[in-house]
Amino acid sequence: MAKKISRNTFVMDNPPTIHSYAAIVGSKEGEGPLGKDFDQVYEDNYFGQSTWEKAEGELLRLTVMKALEKGKLRKEDIDMLFAGDLLNQCTTTSYGLRELDIPLLCVYGACSTMSETLLMSALVTDSGLGGNIVACTSSHFCSAERQFRFPLSYGGVRTPTAQWTCTASGACVIQPGGLEGPHIQAATVGKIVDMGVTDANNMGAAMAPAAAYVIKTHLADRGLSPEDFDLILTGDLGRVGGTLLIELLSKDGIDISSRYKDCGTMMFDFSKQDVHGGGSGCGCSASVLCGHFLDRIKKGEYKNVLFCATGALMSPTMSQQGESIPGISHAVHISG
Amino acid sequence: MAKKISRNTFVMDNPPTIHSYAAIVGSKEGEGPLGKDFDQVYEDNYFGQSTWEKAEGELLRLTVMKALEKGKLRKEDIDMLFAGDLLNQCTTTSYGLRELDIPLLCVYGACSTMSETLLMSALVTDSGLGGNIVACTSSHFCSAERQFRFPLSYGGVRTPTAQWTCTASGACVIQPGGLEGPHIQAATVGKIVDMGVTDANNMGAAMAPAAAYVIKTHLADRGLSPEDFDLILTGDLGRVGGTLLIELLSKDGIDISSRYKDCGTMMFDFSKQDVHGGGSGCGCSASVLCGHFLDRIKKGEYKNVLFCATGALMSPTMSQQGESIPGISHAVHISG
Repeated sequence: MAKKISRNTFVMDNPPTIHSYAAIVGSKEGEGPLGKDFDQVYEDNYFGQSTWEKAEGELLRLTVMKALEKGKLRKEDIDMLFAGDLLNQCTTTSYGLRELDIPLLCVYGACSTMSETLLMSALVTDSGLGGNIVACTSSHFCSAERQFRFPLSYGGVRTPTAQWTCTASGACVIQPGGLEGPHIQAATVGKIVDMGVTDANNMGAAMAPAAAYVIKTHLADRGLSPEDFDLILTGDLGRVGGTLLIELLSKDGIDISSRYKDCGTMMFDFSKQDVHGGGSGCGCSASVLCGHFLDRIKKGEYKNVLFCATGALMSPTMSQQGESIPGISHAVHISG
Repeated sequence: MAKKISRNTFVMDNPPTIHSYAAIVGSKEGEGPLGKDFDQVYEDNYFGQSTWEKAEGELLRLTVMKALEKGKLRKEDIDMLFAGDLLNQCTTTSYGLRELDIPLLCVYGACSTMSETLLMSALVTDSGLGGNIVACTSSHFCSAERQFRFPLSYGGVRTPTAQWTCTASGACVIQPGGLEGPHIQAATVGKIVDMGVTDANNMGAAMAPAAAYVIKTHLADRGLSPEDFDLILTGDLGRVGGTLLIELLSKDGIDISSRYKDCGTMMFDFSKQDVHGGGSGCGCSASVLCGHFLDRIKKGEYKNVLFCATGALMSPTMSQQGESIPGISHAVHISG
């Protein structure tokens, strides 16, 4: 049974197992340095659908079904889905997962969603309320651009700090703790941190303080140091936000620089792919975790990873009203 | 420790207590038949803010602070917030609750949000992971109209089945089970049910099948009948959806008609207030539960209430693409 060791940090008693997992991405992500790690790369960014929103729903559904297939499970075997996405009114989740006919608890954490769904799946599972729980999320470049910025056909020029929303999805099946890993060992619930960044094209900077808060809190609550982890992995701070995070933590005497990576920075080849600040979107960290890292954690290449997907709780309406961008990040400790 | 008794129904072992609660509404809701039950009625529907979105954020913040005040708690005493709302990218939650500086797990369930936040607070609390957890949500007529329908100044004519999004908010502080109630006894996680309703002005019809599913499942999983409850309460099916729900359940041999009420139908006086199908919005069921019913449950007027907030997972974008409206509802058994 999970234990609450502070206001917002929980340590698992019988660490839940990530039984199976899958990642599916679009063509551009497939051409990046991690291209071979994903279960599937779709050349058709419409995923056989007629609109970008329906495409993203189909991408999420395909990814969940792939995770089930890899875990030799049918959809009837799944007790509950924790899912969420970026599209207004969590459209991808509602429409994409509708036909699965599985009880759903939908969450909203912007690009921190994969941490949030993993954290909640782990808490529920280690409290004896699990079985087979799916944690999943997705994002799509084209649906996100038209919602948050401009329709693609407008051809808007992007600023150097702007990030590229990944067409990508990741899904994990969480089961009660067993011998085989990866396992979820602990987690910290994040809080909203807003340092006043108002530039919707610099979301890495908006999210870095929230990541710094959750990493610092997780380490302090458990009496750990960065050296206790092989890897501290953020979601999509990109190059700008990642540098800021290292600086922010070093001011508190915490040096993560030798063991820090960011999924958004890893997703693309900056020298060849025109992605400015790096990848972003809920699906970015979800697919890099499920496609690249979980296999390596399973093989023992990484023993302890602190996974902190990062969300910019950005709203175009609030930005138009002059508001800054609140950030949030939740931390999940995954072990081999 | 909560027990999982079926795929998606959980029964509490030491039923968590609703320690304190509050409801705040706008002027129109204050003029309705329940007007005197709410903690505060604001005549200024801007709540002292400059935009409708900021007004809704302030309404939610004020309601959470009122629930804390009534419970003699400071914001530092709260371990975690489960919150969510209707506005794109859960703006109300992110911006309204930002300054509280409390760890946050944001959910999206459209108007089913109050059930979802109560359910998750109860699961976490009865698993020993609680302390003081706040479950809350809100909605605002003016922010919802401009996002989902038309700007107010357009003066669009409403159809007879259209519902009126309530300017209202409700918040509960959940603590580990104690002697005094109200208590949360059990809960069922809902699933998406979509019977093909495409009329965004008839959301009661879109949600009724999801409410029927969760009520039927909750009763069957626990071996209960409607007679085991004094009250079966839906969120905002309104007059149209409420009638449909009774019909749908009667086809399965379940008669709830003598103990059924709907918060959306109770909120307004149909003979005097021009609200067509009835009230709706996350804040509708949240404020009617927290303002009207929890006091009466505490006094013993109701012994067992099955609270099923109902959500239409509607997206204007998907409606424009010809899609139907998926519904969801979660059931929470509250006892005196």
